[in-house]
Amino acid sequence: MPTSTGRSSGVKPAAEALAIGRGAVRGEGLAQAVLGGDRRSLARLLTEVENATPVAEVAMRRLYPSAGRAHLVGITGAPGSGKSTLVAALTGVAREAGRTVAVIAVDPSSPITGGAILGDRVRMQGHAGDRGVFIRSMASRGHAGGLAATSVAAAAVLDAAGFDLILIETVGTGQSEVEVAAAADTTVVLEAPDMGDEVQAIKAGLLEVADFVVVNKGDRPGAARTASQLRAMLVAAAPRTGTPGRPRPKRPNVLITTAATGDGVPELLAALDRHRPSPSEPTGEPARVARATAQIRAVLEQRLQARLADSGHSEGTRHLVEAVANHEIDPYTAADRLLADLFETNRDTS
Amino acid sequence: MPTSTGRSSGVKPAAEALAIGRGAVRGEGLAQAVLGGDRRSLARLLTEVENATPVAEVAMRRLYPSAGRAHLVGITGAPGSGKSTLVAALTGVAREAGRTVAVIAVDPSSPITGGAILGDRVRMQGHAGDRGVFIRSMASRGHAGGLAATSVAAAAVLDAAGFDLILIETVGTGQSEVEVAAAADTTVVLEAPDMGDEVQAIKAGLLEVADFVVVNKGDRPGAARTASQLRAMLVAAAPRTGTPGRPRPKRPNVLITTAATGDGVPELLAALDRHRPSPSEPTGEPARVARATAQIRAVLEQRLQARLADSGHSEGTRHLVEAVANHEIDPYTAADRLLADLFETNRDTS
Repeated sequence: MPTSTGRSSGVKPAAEALAIGRGAVRGEGLAQAVLGGDRRSLARLLTEVENATPVAEVAMRRLYPSAGRAHLVGITGAPGSGKSTLVAALTGVAREAGRTVAVIAVDPSSPITGGAILGDRVRMQGHAGDRGVFIRSMASRGHAGGLAATSVAAAAVLDAAGFDLILIETVGTGQSEVEVAAAADTTVVLEAPDMGDEVQAIKAGLLEVADFVVVNKGDRPGAARTASQLRAMLVAAAPRTGTPGRPRPKRPNVLITTAATGDGVPELLAALDRHRPSPSEPTGEPARVARATAQIRAVLEQRLQARLADSGHSEGTRHLVEAVANHEIDPYTAADRLLADLFETNRDTS
Repeated sequence: MPTSTGRSSGVKPAAEALAIGRGAVRGEGLAQAVLGGDRRSLARLLTEVENATPVAEVAMRRLYPSAGRAHLVGITGAPGSGKSTLVAALTGVAREAGRTVAVIAVDPSSPITGGAILGDRVRMQGHAGDRGVFIRSMASRGHAGGLAATSVAAAAVLDAAGFDLILIETVGTGQSEVEVAAAADTTVVLEAPDMGDEVQAIKAGLLEVADFVVVNKGDRPGAARTASQLRAMLVAAAPRTGTPGRPRPKRPNVLITTAATGDGVPELLAALDRHRPSPSEPTGEPARVARATAQIRAVLEQRLQARLADSGHSEGTRHLVEAVANHEIDPYTAADRLLADLFETNRDTS
């Protein structure tokens, strides 16, 4: 029987060792270039991070100590609430104040190709050519450790690259997408016009993750009334002391903007700045701890999958999956057989 | 130092052993009652499945061999496309044909309480009191092994309970939510009226998972034209041979229904029936293999988390998480320390 790579204890075949060596060199090189301000390397590294490659790991290990200084702001809301326009307007105001801005736009993606569909984000083209702005579109689909973990890792790269303000924009109608915005230091929820009870329910869920609720399209009739209603609703909800073991609902501020004209946008940026966590007291800050946990868990899942794929029993795995598909064995039995095999292999070789 | 349960090799404290014993008895009892047709036990077991409890595991092991006979149909579409009305209409037609129907409705949920917001699904109340119909609302949030894995496990329970047709309804605007519908044997995508480019992009992504595209609200002007446009679009997309390693895009049929009046609904049910996979040749059927894989992975993730939580180093874990949050160490180093500790513990005690 040929020795599988999974069972050879530490002794890697030459080709594999060479590939790993190249990945390490490339990762170090990318990290160095990103710290030096090279935008093309930054774009390349973000692709590696999206694909969770060994190159990304090497670079992230190198960059991570330089991150932790940026303010991460998540912006979410139902389709049509004007998220992209607000992101473009916030970017403009922050740039006028001399700050650098990175945008991560999580877009609905093709399940077949995995690519993001909205792509180049035409509405941000006003900032094209400005070196103080970096825009990245990210597909919502196909991230091994989860969409939130991938976008948090991408934000850490942009943070290490020196951007002051990182805006993460997602549509607020999917579970994974809401988690992305909620993982930021500060979460902004945009209000959309009423689109039926399904959207109402989505809105109610969104309000609970909001640090700020923004009624956008403030030039439309009824905007002030909507803001008043939201304030009343949030005050009514506030006396709840929360379920034990769960975070207490936040008490978000309600603001009005008209992103298309810029009205209210400087006031929103000022409010965001006041909400920014103090860098002097980061320990135990809930959003940062949650982000760290998500990242560690994503790495653990990658490691588990790599070990499973690498353990020389892919034939056996296939048989187990088919047996479960045919209801000959249950998924728990199959999982336990795989795990036993994994730990057995690990004990033999370590 | 007190011996932690994680390090005691096989010898469980009496209280814990008793709890496990009770869970096993309860799981066996629930499974037995579900197979016997008890609806209250079915509802209870689905709650256990949602919470991924040991009771659910015992019951699922017992029920799994009885599953694999139902036809799982996923129904998804943008908010406002009429999913719930169509599900109610399909249920009515299937009941007239003497078939039993179970509905899993995945609803947007409160991030704080974890509960589903739409709740009792008022639109399905026409079927209340019919023992041949079972309706379950499921929160979109907070499933350890992922939303798709949880809903697939719930479908397996309903399958084992003897339902002929299982309809899984989700909103088609979130990544996890689309995966739920795509995990069924047959996936139906409902078309909604145009709501801007964001929804257009969502629609394009949805079309790729569709076995059937249904233009609902067929009594509105322009429905026939929309259907023609969709057919032309799908034919134009069809010549693609697909990316290597990815499934080839499906070539879905386009149908027109008016769920509110029932027009076209019998024809849709007949089309779904023709698409049902043959029970005589299940091996390698892609949807079933994908479901089995999702379930095994969900169990593996649960096991990994349980082992981590159980390994007596929760203090150490907390320190590692805080160090990552403060950017003192990177998530890869933290994950590898946790894993090393885990395997070490496992070797000592097994």
